[in-house]
Amino acid sequence: MQNDIVAALDIGGTKIAGALVDGRGRILVRAQRATPSQEDGDTVMGAVQSVLGELSADSLWGDVRALGIGSAGPVDASKGTVSPVNVPGWRGFPLVERVRALTGGLPVTLIGDGAAITAAEHWQGAARGHDNALCMVVSTGVGGGLVLGGGLHAGPTGNAGHIGHISVDLDGDLCPCGGRGCVERIASGPNIARRALDDGWLPGPDGDASAAAVAVAARAGDPVARASFERAAQALAAGIAATATLVEIDIAVVGGGVAKAGEVLFTPLRKALDDYATLSFVQDLRVAPAVTGTDAGLIGAAAAVIAGAAASEAAVSG
Amino acid sequence: MQNDIVAALDIGGTKIAGALVDGRGRILVRAQRATPSQEDGDTVMGAVQSVLGELSADSLWGDVRALGIGSAGPVDASKGTVSPVNVPGWRGFPLVERVRALTGGLPVTLIGDGAAITAAEHWQGAARGHDNALCMVVSTGVGGGLVLGGGLHAGPTGNAGHIGHISVDLDGDLCPCGGRGCVERIASGPNIARRALDDGWLPGPDGDASAAAVAVAARAGDPVARASFERAAQALAAGIAATATLVEIDIAVVGGGVAKAGEVLFTPLRKALDDYATLSFVQDLRVAPAVTGTDAGLIGAAAAVIAGAAASEAAVSG
Repeated sequence: MQNDIVAALDIGGTKIAGALVDGRGRILVRAQRATPSQEDGDTVMGAVQSVLGELSADSLWGDVRALGIGSAGPVDASKGTVSPVNVPGWRGFPLVERVRALTGGLPVTLIGDGAAITAAEHWQGAARGHDNALCMVVSTGVGGGLVLGGGLHAGPTGNAGHIGHISVDLDGDLCPCGGRGCVERIASGPNIARRALDDGWLPGPDGDASAAAVAVAARAGDPVARASFERAAQALAAGIAATATLVEIDIAVVGGGVAKAGEVLFTPLRKALDDYATLSFVQDLRVAPAVTGTDAGLIGAAAAVIAGAAASEAAVSG
Repeated sequence: MQNDIVAALDIGGTKIAGALVDGRGRILVRAQRATPSQEDGDTVMGAVQSVLGELSADSLWGDVRALGIGSAGPVDASKGTVSPVNVPGWRGFPLVERVRALTGGLPVTLIGDGAAITAAEHWQGAARGHDNALCMVVSTGVGGGLVLGGGLHAGPTGNAGHIGHISVDLDGDLCPCGGRGCVERIASGPNIARRALDDGWLPGPDGDASAAAVAVAARAGDPVARASFERAAQALAAGIAATATLVEIDIAVVGGGVAKAGEVLFTPLRKALDDYATLSFVQDLRVAPAVTGTDAGLIGAAAAVIAGAAASEAAVSG
């Protein structure tokens, strides 16, 4: 499998990206369409078909042995269906079956986008060489995925690692998911910005009230802006510590737009982790920024296929 | 391995139990000593030696192929050492090496007690047939273990599944572990009793102020007693939901003394789980009482050996 080529799809609420990826994780061909996220399911599928059409027109397509999909969730890998929150036309949409039909019966692997980014970080990023890792994206939402025992742990439905929706504050604010005090409800970019505004932070003359603007203010020493990042860091630390305590990980990789705040986030995060990761077997837990960039979803979808194939080959020849 | 016999040790702060167990999980021979928990390390080891001496005097000992240890934690399976909180004479104590030396070099497998109980419930109890499960003990403390992908997930150091020390209340009360708002700090027996007393519950004429007495009062309709169990149930639900959201489990098995309260605990637990297990892939999560009893630690230590041997044989012959 190492020298073969796989196809990858990264399905999000904004764009549908596709690529042909080689065994070393290099993107050889790429295609992209905007997601017609508010249209009916067949129209959205039309954009996927268009991406696949462009990829399959390439001369390398004949070498493609399998296809991986990383999709915004929830997904159900056991049924091959997806129900992305921001694509209402797809509810239990049979994406695997439809993609398989369009590609002449290629084997198709589906995982959630958090698992895909995790697979990418494990293959080429900050989690490389770590057999047990949590990888997170802290952005408009908070997502994640797990590497356990040396391999991606996507879970039976492909959704494992959903750290954004574990409760770290059981009496806390209601979360759109229906829960209370979820990590995302405290630590996402919009919640960092909202909390800063609620507590009296004033945006600059450009009116930018985003988490990135709060980060600039925090870096300049604004105490309210700093406090909002510290609260986010505390929630992330509680969630990361819970994950380590439950499954034993030795590194937590944090990426996404909010992680771009840098030490404004990472310094209080490491400090808070000392408060929550207390048991002996989690005390050496490290936190590192993510390395892979906007192609992480594509690389990770490819990685899931390649790792799956490698596991099958090991089972056959082992 | 199925027809062979394994030896098992269950090491706790109160007793050190040993047994010879057959491939169907039947205990054929057993031995037990009180744990001299406040003595020096060699004296504690003397009790282990005495248990092993009794087991090895049996004619079945010649059929023993391997030995499993489930120990109060923290343990470090990667180093073969144990540091049980309630046995101060053992800190980083090389239990695996010492047991191996006493048994003529038998292969020894070490796991934490939460993992051992989980292995027992997966083999013979309520988690049987479930490929992804959380098993918990709610008692003086709160412990647990995980089954993932059909097998015990003990983690690199044997401590995975420590659900008692994940924070579900990041601003909550300090826990003896050093964290805040841990599940154990809210849901353990002593905390259920303490909260009921603090809120005005009065023990009966016998003066029994244990969680079991609070359960009796709750069953009789005492609102303060009921509220204390409901708060414990809420913390357990948040922890169980977090586990399901992180690793995908389809059943949570709850045992231990507090679980003996029955519906006083399980009814609010199931209700609270609806509040915290909100994402589509965790909504079918079930909660069930544990089935295995006081022998769970021994059965689970044996199960870990037998499952490990089965995995090795599969790798060799697969």
